[in-house]
Amino acid sequence: MIETFPNPNPARDYVIEHIASEFTSVCPKTGHPDFATIVVRYVADRACLELKSLKLYYQDYRNRGIFYEAVTNKILDDLVAACQPRWMEIETQWTGRGGIRSVIKARHG
Amino acid sequence: MIETFPNPNPARDYVIEHIASEFTSVCPKTGHPDFATIVVRYVADRACLELKSLKLYYQDYRNRGIFYEAVTNKILDDLVAACQPRWMEIETQWTGRGGIRSVIKARHG
Amino acid sequence: MIETFPNPNPARDYVIEHIASEFTSVCPKTGHPDFATIVVRYVADRACLELKSLKLYYQDYRNRGIFYEAVTNKILDDLVAACQPRWMEIETQWTGRGGIRSVIKARHG
Amino acid sequence: MIETFPNPNPARDYVIEHIASEFTSVCPKTGHPDFATIVVRYVADRACLELKSLKLYYQDYRNRGIFYEAVTNKILDDLVAACQPRWMEIETQWTGRGGIRSVIKARHG
Amino acid sequence: MIETFPNPNPARDYVIEHIASEFTSVCPKTGHPDFATIVVRYVADRACLELKSLKLYYQDYRNRGIFYEAVTNKILDDLVAACQPRWMEIETQWTGRGGIRSVIKARHG
Amino acid sequence: MIETFPNPNPARDYVIEHIASEFTSVCPKTGHPDFATIVVRYVADRACLELKSLKLYYQDYRNRGIFYEAVTNKILDDLVAACQPRWMEIETQWTGRGGIRSVIKARHG
Amino acid sequence: MIETFPNPNPARDYVIEHIASEFTSVCPKTGHPDFATIVVRYVADRACLELKSLKLYYQDYRNRGIFYEAVTNKILDDLVAACQPRWMEIETQWTGRGGIRSVIKARHG
Amino acid sequence: MIETFPNPNPARDYVIEHIASEFTSVCPKTGHPDFATIVVRYVADRACLELKSLKLYYQDYRNRGIFYEAVTNKILDDLVAACQPRWMEIETQWTGRGGIRSVIKARHG
Amino acid sequence: MIETFPNPNPARDYVIEHIASEFTSVCPKTGHPDFATIVVRYVADRACLELKSLKLYYQDYRNRGIFYEAVTNKILDDLVAACQPRWMEIETQWTGRGGIRSVIKARHG
Amino acid sequence: MIETFPNPNPARDYVIEHIASEFTSVCPKTGHPDFATIVVRYVADRACLELKSLKLYYQDYRNRGIFYEAVTNKILDDLVAACQPRWMEIETQWTGRGGIRSVIKARHG
Repeated sequence: MIETFPNPNPARDYVIEHIASEFTSVCPKTGHPDFATIVVRYVADRACLELKSLKLYYQDYRNRGIFYEAVTNKILDDLVAACQPRWMEIETQWTGRGGIRSVIKARHG
Repeated sequence: MIETFPNPNPARDYVIEHIASEFTSVCPKTGHPDFATIVVRYVADRACLELKSLKLYYQDYRNRGIFYEAVTNKILDDLVAACQPRWMEIETQWTGRGGIRSVIKARHG
Repeated sequence: MIETFPNPNPARDYVIEHIASEFTSVCPKTGHPDFATIVVRYVADRACLELKSLKLYYQDYRNRGIFYEAVTNKILDDLVAACQPRWMEIETQWTGRGGIRSVIKARHG
Repeated sequence: MIETFPNPNPARDYVIEHIASEFTSVCPKTGHPDFATIVVRYVADRACLELKSLKLYYQDYRNRGIFYEAVTNKILDDLVAACQPRWMEIETQWTGRGGIRSVIKARHG
Repeated sequence: MIETFPNPNPARDYVIEHIASEFTSVCPKTGHPDFATIVVRYVADRACLELKSLKLYYQDYRNRGIFYEAVTNKILDDLVAACQPRWMEIETQWTGRGGIRSVIKARHG
Repeated sequence: MIETFPNPNPARDYVIEHIASEFTSVCPKTGHPDFATIVVRYVADRACLELKSLKLYYQDYRNRGIFYEAVTNKILDDLVAACQPRWMEIETQWTGRGGIRSVIKARHG
Repeated sequence: MIETFPNPNPARDYVIEHIASEFTSVCPKTGHPDFATIVVRYVADRACLELKSLKLYYQDYRNRGIFYEAVTNKILDDLVAACQPRWMEIETQWTGRGGIRSVIKARHG
Repeated sequence: MIETFPNPNPARDYVIEHIASEFTSVCPKTGHPDFATIVVRYVADRACLELKSLKLYYQDYRNRGIFYEAVTNKILDDLVAACQPRWMEIETQWTGRGGIRSVIKARHG
Repeated sequence: MIETFPNPNPARDYVIEHIASEFTSVCPKTGHPDFATIVVRYVADRACLELKSLKLYYQDYRNRGIFYEAVTNKILDDLVAACQPRWMEIETQWTGRGGIRSVIKARHG
Repeated sequence: MIETFPNPNPARDYVIEHIASEFTSVCPKTGHPDFATIVVRYVADRACLELKSLKLYYQDYRNRGIFYEAVTNKILDDLVAACQPRWMEIETQWTGRGGIRSVIKARHG
């Protein structure tokens, strides 16, 4: 589902960062909506993430019941599978529920 | 009392941070309320802390008479016991009483 | 097309930075305009980049359909070819589309 | 005079910080009041500093004529004597008089 | 659906303001999600808006396709119908899509 | 319960403002704690509010289940009854629950 | 070309504001690109401006040579013609060229 | 005790403002120190307040047990008596005790 | 020397503002350079000021020895003569020399 | 001593403002240096204040023992005498001594 396009310069290691500030999913425990900013940083190998399909991929979580930790790891796994990067890092920043806000970071490579 | 759920990706070391800004307990000496922000940072092993039960766990201190230092160590001990993390750090930031504010940090692993 | 002028002090390593905040190109997928700030930092060898021709070079992207990653690498390649610097870095900062904003960094030398 | 209570977790090395922003004493030379923020950071051994008695201890300087440097060292000596910490640091930050403000730091262990 | 509770002091005119920063609905034209902050200010007559039901009422828009202008007027109509206030004002602040952000204000009484 | 002391200058109209940032009560609907800043502004007639008893009065709400609107009006009524001011205004600012934060203002005289 | 949709509540006077921060046109004198933020505020009568077509309408200026003053008045005339509002105001804020930045405001009704 | 010097220009109405940020007195109820910033604004008639004596006058409150409201009115009365101004205003801003901070304003003429 | 172009909408009163931040002239007394931001606000009648010629007009002051006050009035006179506006205001903001910075404002119509 | 030059446009009422941030004089009571920012605002009649002589005039206070109030009024009197303005205002802003900072304002015409 996540489209890619050929890395225009695979001979060079360079860093790409996408910051999505309108992510929302659903808490599997309470059924209430969760809101987050999702940051992905990576060094592409052969393929780059296409932004419109990344946006649609994020929108797909809108009505899914899933924990913060699982979102973070699943996005990392899916984006790694989609574009096979040399290195990738996901940071999810969740607005608070019940007075507690959370930040989760995972890394590949 | 603190519930957990299975770490969705135990094969990976990743950092989880929960910042609770509405913690309150009672001073054992004066009986006056204390207010704090509690930060927990950890790398999960098999289990992750479930947020709703963490919130309820924090609310449980509301009427307990306990010193800052004891709160900090007890939260660390309880959360370590609940989820057996690979590494964990607790930072408690207390609003001032009598013109003195305090910060306490403890670490496990 | 990018003009240069002789480095007035090639015996010395010093850093030059040009920040262009009004860059615009077109998304090759959707046809919608993209907006960015382009930062170039470099240590010149024999030649320095002439600013007016750099501005015209950037304006040339106005109606070109090209991905963020390709813009970043192409600018780096073209500026390296034009002035053969000892070291150069390009950072492109894209305003958001669909709630996602991006930053891309590439380096030469 | 400074009370202590048993360290709730002597098996663990953890850092305690108390920031008192309403300290005042008297300049022994001019008789004018001095104002300071006093920061104490320490790792407790058997005993922790009790906050209410610390506040009263600080208030005791209110009408004492004493130089900045002496205040800093005396507080360090008194607090070390009171709780026998594994490590302690005192930082005093004085608001200006005659356009000069001062910061003094002392350490034990 | 929106619950109310009796105004604890109907003899007095006083102003109540609720600011909801995590509102989301769907654009009826493109099917993409919209995000907004919803502010309601009112002077109650007999009934006050109950916050938990207000939160659930807002969550009900999550998958509804509706224009900004219609959201604003419908919330105003529904809240007026629910609590019959002496005066009420709704302000909706929408994060940008396609580089355009919007603010809409409507008033009753 | 709220103590007062004689207005030291009843011949003069002057404004007194007390800002309490550590107020907490309990939501009567969900049982979860609420947190607020309470501002009282008044012109005293014969009596002024004594601060220590005001602090204890506020602490009394700690485990009481009561809506925001009722807290605001009750504080206004109680303080008016206690000191019979020439004019008084209460503003309560509540930290968010479920993504909604609230501000309530009521006035006497 | 600018689409509209029926005003969901023509019985009520309410204010709609759209802020477009990525407008670009071309200077008719020098051929260089101009960049602006375009703000439109209006009270709708029967019709509201549809945002996607407004975005496309703005994009249409991308390669047109036109003075700031003419852009401002033409947008006002076109939007008035498209939706026949009860009142409308256009503010264009232009980033600098040659060290001069400009702001232009026009109003209808 | 408060010295004055002749107004250098009694023919002219002009405004003098002195802001003292290191005021301290003692709470008559608890015996604990209070800290405040004292602002005096006035239009002099024949006499101006001499600053060094004003500073010493303020220092005189250092060990006096007195309520905020009484401090404010007493300073106003004393300064009015000392210099007989055409108009004077006192504002006292007290740092918090027990989580409550206060501001008091009184005016003469 | 200052070019104009026909007001695209003389039937409408609307406000045009140009802010030039890179003005420089010479002090007639000391020969040192002066730097200023020049703001012109006006309502056009038949003619609008053309920006490129305005920029060149400003550049013409570069080596002219002239006082701040004279610059301000001369610009107002010249721009009024050039475009015969319905109303015009000039504000010149001078960066400091010798620790003194200045602001001058003049108005026509 | 304060030089002037002819008002370039006496037919027009316009406002001139000079802000001098490096003024220093001496306290007549203690002999310590005082530091201030001096703001003069005026509408010239026939003559404008020449800036270099104004700077030298200010420098003349460097070793003079004089109260804040007298400085303010004397500057107003001297500048009024020098240029006979239609209206003039002086504001002096003094950095603190002994924890007290001051602001004085006087006006002519």
